[in-house]
Parts: sequence; structure tokens; C-alpha cells
Amino acid sequence: MARTIEVCLTPALLNLYAIEDSIVVVIDILRATSSITYGIDNGAEAIIPVANVEECLAYADKGFLLAAERNGEVVEGYDFGNSPFSYTKEKVGGKTVVLTTTNGTKAMHMARERAYQVVVGSFLNITALCDWLKTQDKNVLLLCAGWKDNFNLEDTLFAGAVVNVLRNDFKHSDDACVVAEDMYLMAKDDLRTYLHKSSHSHRLAALNIEEDVQFCLKLDVCKAIPVLRGDRLVALTL
Amino acid sequence: MARTIEVCLTPALLNLYAIEDSIVVVIDILRATSSITYGIDNGAEAIIPVANVEECLAYADKGFLLAAERNGEVVEGYDFGNSPFSYTKEKVGGKTVVLTTTNGTKAMHMARERAYQVVVGSFLNITALCDWLKTQDKNVLLLCAGWKDNFNLEDTLFAGAVVNVLRNDFKHSDDACVVAEDMYLMAKDDLRTYLHKSSHSHRLAALNIEEDVQFCLKLDVCKAIPVLRGDRLVALTL
Repeated sequence: MARTIEVCLTPALLNLYAIEDSIVVVIDILRATSSITYGIDNGAEAIIPVANVEECLAYADKGFLLAAERNGEVVEGYDFGNSPFSYTKEKVGGKTVVLTTTNGTKAMHMARERAYQVVVGSFLNITALCDWLKTQDKNVLLLCAGWKDNFNLEDTLFAGAVVNVLRNDFKHSDDACVVAEDMYLMAKDDLRTYLHKSSHSHRLAALNIEEDVQFCLKLDVCKAIPVLRGDRLVALTL
Repeated sequence: MARTIEVCLTPALLNLYAIEDSIVVVIDILRATSSITYGIDNGAEAIIPVANVEECLAYADKGFLLAAERNGEVVEGYDFGNSPFSYTKEKVGGKTVVLTTTNGTKAMHMARERAYQVVVGSFLNITALCDWLKTQDKNVLLLCAGWKDNFNLEDTLFAGAVVNVLRNDFKHSDDACVVAEDMYLMAKDDLRTYLHKSSHSHRLAALNIEEDVQFCLKLDVCKAIPVLRGDRLVALTL
């Protein structure tokens, strides 16, 4: 039977999908899964996603780097925030990072309860990710982390980009795949401009992180595919 | 303060929206809200949406017309099915119809618990609906009934058409509005062809109701706006 690829537009809809035999790709483009991809690619030993600053604190005194932001500022006492530029070789190589991310963590924790495997996707590793998915004999669910359980533009655009790459290798028939792919095809020549339409874009402008956004939309900066093992994201061994 | 317009892509996400001061437009293009619009426009006294054939049966012996389908066939003993062509003046004028529709009923019942007002939209009454919404001093939520709690293409396309008409009269910033409108703009010159991409289209082809689909995509056949009063949809008095 042909493998299927599906797009789940928000974690609130995940219960509608059978994922016991699926690889779930968690997508939180601005900025969690982009920073995670970049960090793992740069040799971080592991990245532990947590939902809030309080949970992050529980990992203090373990020798981990702690990453937490509030309103775009690094929380006092923490090592850095959520910018992908904090996840360089120099900063995270060989280290374990605890990363605070509400939407991404929720999506990963929900997915791991039932999925065959949970990996992390972003524009930064899209080709490596798609090449690997093609070699796996599994269905694929692209899980958009969204924004507070609702639909968002940037995660759906990335899902559409993956559907577009994998369209000949997987059966895809659900309506969310159709719209994600068509949105991506419409926007792909200038993703940044298209994202100016999004609500998150306004939030991000207020945070003054335009360079982060530009970076998160770059293609194929990384080869690594982060995979969830327990509560830790580590590099998938290819 | 400017009125807002928002798109809720499925009933499963309705709890994310504050609708206490909103007019909720329920959308189930193929075919519930199209048939309801046509029926009310053709003088039906009321249409009562119910979730399943069993619930429909509870209305037997009350002198109502009962509409129920299973697998595209009128259920034995019922007066007609869900085709809009059953909702003509001759058949429904002055009558009350009990209509079985899973997705549409669920959306309407969920909305009425909190919304200021619940009305029904379809391509058949889009201009009448939009003209009326412009005159109301209320926020608008376009609620796609979807398919089994998930996203579908046809309801989202209609939501996008409404956003496009109302874009200068309402503030719209949520990402679902953006994608619905862009999908609509991409597809509007040939909605039928675009819908061939949808999963529902395959289900519909199996039901052999191509004429119904064509009819449900017609613009402005009707002037009536069905409004929910208790469990009954009746014509809104303009």
C-alpha cells in the first residue's frame, strides 16, 4: 500500500489522525524548530524542549544551558533566548540545552504519546529531512505547532513545501495538504513578503527579530534531523 | 473600535474564539447550508438541522418533512434527501423541514451556545449575507463546518470569498483569514475545478451528485439569510 502524507494544521486537531505507524514531523518555524535544527546541526548533544520558564528552571544546576525569553528579552539568569543565532557551534557544541517553547513543546509532547517516531523540521533542514523521509517505509504526518492551538501561516507554508517535495513518493489526499502546498507554491518566491501578512509577523516585528525570521526561512543550512528520544531531541543517526 | 472578521477553520477550534458579541456564520457548502439557504429562500417556514437519522425520526408524526440520506440515497420512509433541488417552492413552501446533517448541525449547535447570533451562509446568498453583515455593528466569525471536525476546502473557500467582500469594512488579521482569502482569489475563476482537488470531491463523485455541487457554487441565487432561533432556522427579517 502506498505511504500517505498528511498535514495537521494545529495540535488541537492531532486526535483526528491515526499516527501509531507514522513519523510525525513537528513544525514551529518561528523559531523553535529552526533553532533546534540549527543547534543539533551545530553539535549540541541534546535539546530538551519545555513549555515554560518555570519548567526550564527545574533543569537548573544540572550543567545544562538554559534558554528562555519573555517578550523578546533573555530572562534574567538564563544563558540565552530563542534566537537561532544563539545555537552556534561555539555556544552549544557538546552541550545540552533546555529550550522554552510553548507551541513546539506542546506539539512534540502530544505527538510522542502515539507516534511511531517524532522528528523536527524547518526550512534549514528541509532537503535532508525529505530525503530521509523518502527512505522510510512509514506514513508521514506534518504537524504544525501553530499559535496557541490555532492555525498559523509560517508552519503551514513549510508543511506545503514538504508536501511539494514528497508529492511523487507519497499519497496525499487530505484537504490540508492541498491548501498547504498551494499556499507554498503561491508564496515560495518570496516567503518573507508573504509572511508579512501573518498575525505572528506583527508580534515578531514588536520583538525586533527580523534577522531571526530571515534566517529561519533559509533553505538547507543544516544536514541534521533532530529526533525525539524520551524528552530529549538528539541528532538522528542516518 | 473597528469590527473584526475571523475565520474558524473547523468546529474543533471554535473554543479558541470569543464569540459572545459576534455574529457566527455557519458554512457547510456541500450541501447543508446551501440547501438550507435555498429552502428558506423558497419559503420554508423553518428548517430544523439534526445530527443523524435517529434524531430526525424524533420529529416524525409532527407534520414536518423529513430529509435524510445515507450513502447518497434517500432513507426509506423519508420525504427527500439533502440535494438542494429538493428544497424548491413546490416542495418546501410553507413547510417545516427536518434536515439531517452531521457537520453543519454540530457547528450550529456549538455556535449557538455562546454566539450573539447564528446565521447560515452559502454561495447562494453571499451578497445578501455580506450586505447585511456590513450593516450590523458586530464582529463576525465565519465558522467552517468542515468534515468530521477537520479542515475542508469548500467551506474555507467560501469563508475566503466573504473575507474578500468585507475586507474594507472589517479588521481582519488572523492567519486563517489570510489563507482563506488567498485560496479563494486563486480558485475563484473556476471553483469547481479547484474543488476537484478536495477529498470531499471524491466522496461526492461516488454519490453521483455533480449537479448538486455545481448548484451549490452558484452566486446569489437567493436573497434570504437563514437565522437560528432556538433549534429552528428561519428567514431573517431584514
